Amino acid sequence: MQHDKILQLDAVIHAPSRLAILSILIGVESSTFAYLKEATGTTDGNLSTHLTKLESAGYITIEKMFVGKKPQTNCAITPAGRSAFENYLSQLEQIVKMQRGSDQ
Amino acid sequence: MQHDKILQLDAVIHAPSRLAILSILIGVESSTFAYLKEATGTTDGNLSTHLTKLESAGYITIEKMFVGKKPQTNCAITPAGRSAFENYLSQLEQIVKMQRGSDQ
Repeated sequence: MQHDKILQLDAVIHAPSRLAILSILIGVESSTFAYLKEATGTTDGNLSTHLTKLESAGYITIEKMFVGKKPQTNCAITPAGRSAFENYLSQLEQIVKMQRGSDQ
Repeated sequence: MQHDKILQLDAVIHAPSRLAILSILIGVESSTFAYLKEATGTTDGNLSTHLTKLESAGYITIEKMFVGKKPQTNCAITPAGRSAFENYLSQLEQIVKMQRGSDQ
């Protein structure tokens, strides 16, 4: 049933900020912390929390490096993250289709 | 851009439990608290919180009545709730389509 599918949605991906982060990372090789912060309009603290959650799930890698003397954090989606994101999109697609179908 | 659309998703509807509740209510005239509790697998307290949030947004009505001597709580989606839910589904649809389109 429709609501079962909804309740099975991957909670790590479903949060809008994390969904936005993954939707950016899936299209690029990697992205800096600064870019993700600007794109998602979050604070440093919130973004860090979201990135750590995605990293803990194995969906992204976070790499800290120096560019010249400036520290830079780079994030990239992993194959597991790509697969989970694809799966999540398919679930959304099914939810929309089922709803459209059952809508009188 | 994709992530802008994601960040604009209606937070009242986006939470899986509330999305599940609305996906049930949109197909029926009204539903009892007991049925919603069973369908969403939530506790009384959690379900109450979600229902109050939906009611505060004007998306559902909550009516307490007696059936014989037994109290019963009935929930129904409002026209505003129906419209917000439709709008949310369209946003999901767009997000999936844009992602599918931009996916290499």
